[in-house]
Amino acid sequence: MGRWEPDARGRLAKAAMALYAEQGFERTTVAEIAARAGLTERTFFRHFADKREVLFSGMDMMRDLLVRAVADAPASATAMDAAGAALAAASSVIQENPERARLRDAIVSGNAELRERELIKLAAFATAVAGALRDRGVPEPAASLAAETAVAVFKVAFARWVSDPGQRDLLGIFRDLMGELRGVLPDDAPV
Amino acid sequence: MGRWEPDARGRLAKAAMALYAEQGFERTTVAEIAARAGLTERTFFRHFADKREVLFSGMDMMRDLLVRAVADAPASATAMDAAGAALAAASSVIQENPERARLRDAIVSGNAELRERELIKLAAFATAVAGALRDRGVPEPAASLAAETAVAVFKVAFARWVSDPGQRDLLGIFRDLMGELRGVLPDDAPV
Repeated sequence: MGRWEPDARGRLAKAAMALYAEQGFERTTVAEIAARAGLTERTFFRHFADKREVLFSGMDMMRDLLVRAVADAPASATAMDAAGAALAAASSVIQENPERARLRDAIVSGNAELRERELIKLAAFATAVAGALRDRGVPEPAASLAAETAVAVFKVAFARWVSDPGQRDLLGIFRDLMGELRGVLPDDAPV
Repeated sequence: MGRWEPDARGRLAKAAMALYAEQGFERTTVAEIAARAGLTERTFFRHFADKREVLFSGMDMMRDLLVRAVADAPASATAMDAAGAALAAASSVIQENPERARLRDAIVSGNAELRERELIKLAAFATAVAGALRDRGVPEPAASLAAETAVAVFKVAFARWVSDPGQRDLLGIFRDLMGELRGVLPDDAPV
């Protein structure tokens, strides 16, 4: 108890993901996760608030990454450039660990509560990107429009990427779809 | 009991909305809603599964409207034209009753569970529009891209419209933002 456990957090996360995949998120207990990791429940709760947090613990880091990418975009970048750069940065990070991303997606997709939580996460990302754009001086509604659209394109890109285990290049899919979006918008037809 | 109550459903919905606005969604009971409407709890449960359903009961109708608008778009319409037409149709219906829409939005915004439910509703609308586009022969990812983007633009338009009680023209805001989206997309800059 209380002694230092080498990479306890990483071991707990790995054990949790394996158990969620094997027997389902609902059926997995914190006691089982701790046992699989060779640690105690108390150690689990030092690292995660609950078993759901294992799946969403990267969210704050990702939000920071998005906000920083918007802030770091060149002064000449349009709102959509900057929002696109943010979601491109997120795509790069996610594709670094495709096995984890696909395992996580399978777990989240299999549980209604987790799917809802995932939608809330994406909405929070759009809100964060819009705020970072406003900090650059982009007015509303252009900031929210660029942020929501970039997140919508990312959502489609991620769904394509995650469903094809042979596909590694999430960033490429995201960029292609940003380009395709341009192509599918009518020039000036009434909507 | 069991006797015919003139517009029981409408009276219950109106009583529920008034109570949610006055004292909060969480604090309102079905017994209070029924009493306010001059009806019984049993009558409430003949019309609504629970008190949340009062706020989301129009969802199936709206989804049908979206799907029909996509199907009814002219054969020459692009995927984005058809998706835009669907969300434009939804905008028209919503702006017919701005007081209800604004009251409902205030209730939903004030409760985390309802906000989550609202995100799920929007995601379901995007899924329905994408499916209707595929039924028209639009391939993936163009179908999902157009559907998710149109819903993202609608989300921004609705937020603007609902926050400004002097504003009546949701459809106009939606159309303007669809046009603005074209403007904010880079011509061929890398994202």
